[in-house]
Amino acid sequence: MYKIVLLRHGESVWNKENRFTGWTDVDLSEKGLAEAKAAGELLKQQGFTFDVAYTSVLKRAIRTLWLTLDEMDLMWIPVYRHWRLNERHYGALQGLNKAETAAQHGEDQVKIWRRSYDIPPPALAADDPRHPAQDRRYHNLSTDELPLTECLKDTVARFLPYWHETIVPAIKRGERVLVVAHGNSLRALIKYLDDVSETEIVGLNIPTAMPLVYELDADCRPIRHYYLGDEAAVAAAMQAVANQGKAR
Amino acid sequence: MYKIVLLRHGESVWNKENRFTGWTDVDLSEKGLAEAKAAGELLKQQGFTFDVAYTSVLKRAIRTLWLTLDEMDLMWIPVYRHWRLNERHYGALQGLNKAETAAQHGEDQVKIWRRSYDIPPPALAADDPRHPAQDRRYHNLSTDELPLTECLKDTVARFLPYWHETIVPAIKRGERVLVVAHGNSLRALIKYLDDVSETEIVGLNIPTAMPLVYELDADCRPIRHYYLGDEAAVAAAMQAVANQGKAR
Repeated sequence: MYKIVLLRHGESVWNKENRFTGWTDVDLSEKGLAEAKAAGELLKQQGFTFDVAYTSVLKRAIRTLWLTLDEMDLMWIPVYRHWRLNERHYGALQGLNKAETAAQHGEDQVKIWRRSYDIPPPALAADDPRHPAQDRRYHNLSTDELPLTECLKDTVARFLPYWHETIVPAIKRGERVLVVAHGNSLRALIKYLDDVSETEIVGLNIPTAMPLVYELDADCRPIRHYYLGDEAAVAAAMQAVANQGKAR
Repeated sequence: MYKIVLLRHGESVWNKENRFTGWTDVDLSEKGLAEAKAAGELLKQQGFTFDVAYTSVLKRAIRTLWLTLDEMDLMWIPVYRHWRLNERHYGALQGLNKAETAAQHGEDQVKIWRRSYDIPPPALAADDPRHPAQDRRYHNLSTDELPLTECLKDTVARFLPYWHETIVPAIKRGERVLVVAHGNSLRALIKYLDDVSETEIVGLNIPTAMPLVYELDADCRPIRHYYLGDEAAVAAAMQAVANQGKAR
């Protein structure tokens, strides 16, 4: 039996400003820094340790990982960054305020863009300055791989190859794995692991910086999962995420 | 022609306390944190950027790298940590004060231990709690690889395989390489690169957190090298390192 820990990054500056972030490389807020540190303290206090960590190429996840590793005195473990762990690409919504977008397009439309499984937000135009081809960190990606928008189904499709080809082999080698990623890239993984239906995944919210433990069997299929830490705090954090899409 | 940057970590808590550090995993001092940040600012200001970074498994080097990458907005580049980039192992001297050791054994003996090419300090005993086999980060090393003390010649011997097998191929792929390591692991590399004699290497001091640029030819042999930044500051920093071994 294996045990891995999934961690969504702490609150970012744009979580706080209630803006769609996606692949925009925004940093943690002061609250996010504190949340990340607290996650490391909690993991250490609960006796967790890790042999390897995986994260995205976005600084809000990397900094959350750094703060966690620092608290756990694990700065020395190997860390692998990969774009496949990035947040869902939010297309042309990236940078817009969630409440304003809801006021303009209606809460229902925003909920569809935020939470439907297979309807992506409007795509970036080829000449949009936000196009990921403009960013050096994605220069080795093919045109097919570069998203201009993503629905959750797309995020699942690009996350899972990394899970199967890189993370699962590490788990099976007996390495204790920490994955620090994003609300939607972690939902993508959880949908696969727990075979969550396309309708149910809409209502699944992952709180920021709350360590989520998955116990896996020999085939890396889940046996059970649970959040570390105080139950009421986890529930409150989940509700906070669910409320973000409301106009007011 | 290639260009790489070598960076010694900022001042550590034990540099400040004038203690032999070696493989002891001490952190940066407040001054060291500021030095690392300044190194990143300088590199950015001078138009440098990197595709990959190599560092040791010791937190004073890793944190220096983190602060440098953060300043340069390069948190997303791949980072590889390896024990072969660690500081020279200081054997049974690890943890002792340099001035006290000089007062006890004489400045000449300490200078020999600090700076002779092939005379190692006294070795750790097999049951010493400081033995690296006690440390999880070295569990995949063979008994032959685990040092109980090192002279600079030993450090050269264990650093160079990583240079040849890992760093040189990256340079030849055209990747812009940053190496963040330690006073003696960098001296080991420089001895090899510039073919410095065993007597001359004794007098070569590397200042903390001053970016050292090496321009290399197609075979990764050095064409020239220079420190970035103010000349007087570099000279003063080198002298400060040279003075550490004195009894008073």
